[in-house]
Amino acid sequence: MPTTSAWHGGGTVAALTIDVDAHTPVLARGRHYATHTSTMSHEQYGLDVGVPRLLALLREEEVSATFFIPGWVAEHHPRLAPTILEHGHEVAHHTYAHRSPTDMTDAEQRADFTRTLEVFARQKVPIAGYRAANWQANAATCELVAEHGLYDSSLMGHDRPYRVTTPRGQFLELPPHWSLDDWEQYAFLPDPHVGSIIQAPHTVLTMWRDEADAHARHQALFMLTLHPSLTGRPGRAEALRALITHMRDRGTRFARCVDIADAAGEDPQLTTHTITPPPTDAYR
Amino acid sequence: MPTTSAWHGGGTVAALTIDVDAHTPVLARGRHYATHTSTMSHEQYGLDVGVPRLLALLREEEVSATFFIPGWVAEHHPRLAPTILEHGHEVAHHTYAHRSPTDMTDAEQRADFTRTLEVFARQKVPIAGYRAANWQANAATCELVAEHGLYDSSLMGHDRPYRVTTPRGQFLELPPHWSLDDWEQYAFLPDPHVGSIIQAPHTVLTMWRDEADAHARHQALFMLTLHPSLTGRPGRAEALRALITHMRDRGTRFARCVDIADAAGEDPQLTTHTITPPPTDAYR
Amino acid sequence: MPTTSAWHGGGTVAALTIDVDAHTPVLARGRHYATHTSTMSHEQYGLDVGVPRLLALLREEEVSATFFIPGWVAEHHPRLAPTILEHGHEVAHHTYAHRSPTDMTDAEQRADFTRTLEVFARQKVPIAGYRAANWQANAATCELVAEHGLYDSSLMGHDRPYRVTTPRGQFLELPPHWSLDDWEQYAFLPDPHVGSIIQAPHTVLTMWRDEADAHARHQALFMLTLHPSLTGRPGRAEALRALITHMRDRGTRFARCVDIADAAGEDPQLTTHTITPPPTDAYR
Amino acid sequence: MPTTSAWHGGGTVAALTIDVDAHTPVLARGRHYATHTSTMSHEQYGLDVGVPRLLALLREEEVSATFFIPGWVAEHHPRLAPTILEHGHEVAHHTYAHRSPTDMTDAEQRADFTRTLEVFARQKVPIAGYRAANWQANAATCELVAEHGLYDSSLMGHDRPYRVTTPRGQFLELPPHWSLDDWEQYAFLPDPHVGSIIQAPHTVLTMWRDEADAHARHQALFMLTLHPSLTGRPGRAEALRALITHMRDRGTRFARCVDIADAAGEDPQLTTHTITPPPTDAYR
Repeated sequence: MPTTSAWHGGGTVAALTIDVDAHTPVLARGRHYATHTSTMSHEQYGLDVGVPRLLALLREEEVSATFFIPGWVAEHHPRLAPTILEHGHEVAHHTYAHRSPTDMTDAEQRADFTRTLEVFARQKVPIAGYRAANWQANAATCELVAEHGLYDSSLMGHDRPYRVTTPRGQFLELPPHWSLDDWEQYAFLPDPHVGSIIQAPHTVLTMWRDEADAHARHQALFMLTLHPSLTGRPGRAEALRALITHMRDRGTRFARCVDIADAAGEDPQLTTHTITPPPTDAYR
Repeated sequence: MPTTSAWHGGGTVAALTIDVDAHTPVLARGRHYATHTSTMSHEQYGLDVGVPRLLALLREEEVSATFFIPGWVAEHHPRLAPTILEHGHEVAHHTYAHRSPTDMTDAEQRADFTRTLEVFARQKVPIAGYRAANWQANAATCELVAEHGLYDSSLMGHDRPYRVTTPRGQFLELPPHWSLDDWEQYAFLPDPHVGSIIQAPHTVLTMWRDEADAHARHQALFMLTLHPSLTGRPGRAEALRALITHMRDRGTRFARCVDIADAAGEDPQLTTHTITPPPTDAYR
Repeated sequence: MPTTSAWHGGGTVAALTIDVDAHTPVLARGRHYATHTSTMSHEQYGLDVGVPRLLALLREEEVSATFFIPGWVAEHHPRLAPTILEHGHEVAHHTYAHRSPTDMTDAEQRADFTRTLEVFARQKVPIAGYRAANWQANAATCELVAEHGLYDSSLMGHDRPYRVTTPRGQFLELPPHWSLDDWEQYAFLPDPHVGSIIQAPHTVLTMWRDEADAHARHQALFMLTLHPSLTGRPGRAEALRALITHMRDRGTRFARCVDIADAAGEDPQLTTHTITPPPTDAYR
Repeated sequence: MPTTSAWHGGGTVAALTIDVDAHTPVLARGRHYATHTSTMSHEQYGLDVGVPRLLALLREEEVSATFFIPGWVAEHHPRLAPTILEHGHEVAHHTYAHRSPTDMTDAEQRADFTRTLEVFARQKVPIAGYRAANWQANAATCELVAEHGLYDSSLMGHDRPYRVTTPRGQFLELPPHWSLDDWEQYAFLPDPHVGSIIQAPHTVLTMWRDEADAHARHQALFMLTLHPSLTGRPGRAEALRALITHMRDRGTRFARCVDIADAAGEDPQLTTHTITPPPTDAYR
């Protein structure tokens, strides 16, 4: 078993993160989807029902969370981010339009990055962290994060916080993972085609409960990623409540990403990673 | 917890809806499938075995349901809709040929819409509601529904009934959802390629039982969508019976969509949505 | 509940059918796969390990089964069909090379059909039944089956035996179904790409046990389809054994397809289906 | 039940094999993925976290394993293979760059094969066995394995060790299988697109526990294949620990592949297979 690190203070820490993507992942597949009324209503559900339900659930369970919001969503729903702040949660940067950084030129990405910061600045929403759309960061992303003094939640090089060095400075990484994301379990749309089987909330609860217990044993950071249009549905919200209850009963403390990043920054045992790409001479 | 609304009268309401698509989803992938005898027999099963079995099960369990039927199916099986009416269930509009509205021009859709109404009119089958094929409604669909004074069951903007405003008037929405549909769980065909894993009825029963309990807690409308060629199979029909028993034991009342729509229309707490497409200047 | 029919004699009848496809489904995707040694060994396993293991299991459990064998497999493994006969099981026709009838011209299919009959005739293996590769029969298939006086197991128009009328006479159908096939649960190959998730035998056992119970309740024919390269694996073979035990404990009788077809032929309640394709004027 | 063979000494033997692929499967899909920082970090996790965690777990559970490592990985991480040896495990050949042998010319494959042997020779890491990338061996692979006197773990013709004859001599096969591989259960990446549903560790543990029991009953070789970037995650590592505990409680002995191959070589009951491709005149 690893030794205790400062950032979790001897106990177990978990981060609930909620990506309020709204219509952006669908529109990023093609602007014509804006006229697909059923599909748009499916995304609107996240804003109208999912976010209020999750805010109520978090209040009832007395848990603080971090909401990653694309600039486009914050701009077109100007009460969203301030309301989340008022509930005591954190708001963080999730690109402007939910396009993968690996699909943008460096110039496009820089414009996308700062445009989003400007949206939040106009709304007086403080931003301390960033998460790449689809967890598809590249070197330019990492440099932007370092340059702006943010923490990041897009890389998967560890299951504890770690430091990342770039040509433009360091940043703190709070790593997510595909297996702790509701998208792979619940997302389904026929057009654009998304997902395959829709998993039962009970199956997902069992998986995440086992993962939470194992993360506690290995002193890893349990970083859960949820979407209001998915986990905002009744059965899935109640599965989340059962997960929170289970984890709290075992002594887990839930914290905002910014607080975990601050504590981790003090941890002398933190490892440091670089973003050097592997050599590719053996590949085409 | 939300406050009680009129449409559920203080208790929990659920709608069982049965989409009698027969051969239409396959033929919509290509008319040449009409000569694929095995595949056609798979769809014919829904009409010959699935519908009678589900009608018997609903009678045994004393549950009223709503059958959404494409005009093509009603036209070529003229005893289908009247027989369903005689069992005390509702028959509703499910497009003419199970083509997605988003794949039709507005003129095509209008022709498809009225052609279906004419089929049911000739059969003296009253129509009060509509559901888009593949839940792929667009603005023209919504205007047609409003224009004809129907309720709709194609949008997913909430998990309770809501009002939708269009340039041609309002309509009442009874929202379905992908997670409460047997298609994503059971559908499998190799050619045309449909589905991936076939889920166990036990797994699906567990999921829907949890969802039903959570819908009751959140006073949401449990809108289940079934297909006779899928849930009409023995093991899945018995899983449905177990679900109905479970829900009734917890006080759920099953109602036809038309009755839920009527009651919801009286609800002063009903929210009203528009169908304005989101801005798309940030997308290609 | 339906009334009792003659073919099941008041009790419940199940058919275990085993499709000994060997290398044919892979070679039908492209002859170059013959040089993919790993993939070929995966198929060879079915012949070398799967068939003997299933024969031993059936002998231990005292169950008679029907083995559907492509002519190509019987021809290149001349001891296979006679050995299966010696164990008291039935051998039946499964096309020559496991190509879908819907992918062949009528002339190709006729040649494929009779070539296979000739292989079995040379081996003195009596053939009473037929199953189309991939359950993709068309009208020409049905006519060939009727013409040769065989029963068929390729159509899914009911879950009990039924009669099918063709321009060349009638035949008896013993319907299979995708949900009672091990292929959708277990098959996986990366190249040619087959399958997605590999299901746990325990999950499959639960599904089939529930289906068997429900088939008994609905007096339906439980027609299970297995592949030696899939269910011949240790854990899956033991799941099959547990299923057989469960079903026998509840009074199910296992019979060869030919015996079920003979008994069903005497059933006055048998329904008769035609193979008329649906009208296609509404489709492209 | 089969009779006892020498290679398992009357008890049950299992092999834990760990494929340390690191970045190679992704880079084999396209060298441009080297610049996808998130994706690369996901692979780096296997080296930085997965390997140490699995080494610790194996030490705690007192189990010896075999690590199949591509030459590229060993070359760019020169302390990896020696460290694994120091822990008492075996290191084996897993191609140079994780390209499928079926995608290489014979000359390319020969160069790939020997280049890898040279990497390990320089590191003084003895190599006794080989496994093809993606289990896609062809005839040239088999000849190379025989020529170099290695055992192989790429063919699936049996579930016990067997002998394979090639024009260049014989080798011993220790067969793996898709159903005993964590890749099909856990792997997920959006770009390059890998996997579909991420299965719960509990589901996978149940499947493998059942398979282990059945392998013991059938005296088959339980050959488990794991990847550090997948099973190295906390919840999956603990599921592996539970599997090891379960198997050891039932008397299973865990051994390195090289030791199983040595013992199997003494087994007079070993079957011998050839790698002759099936005839293809019936196929295009």
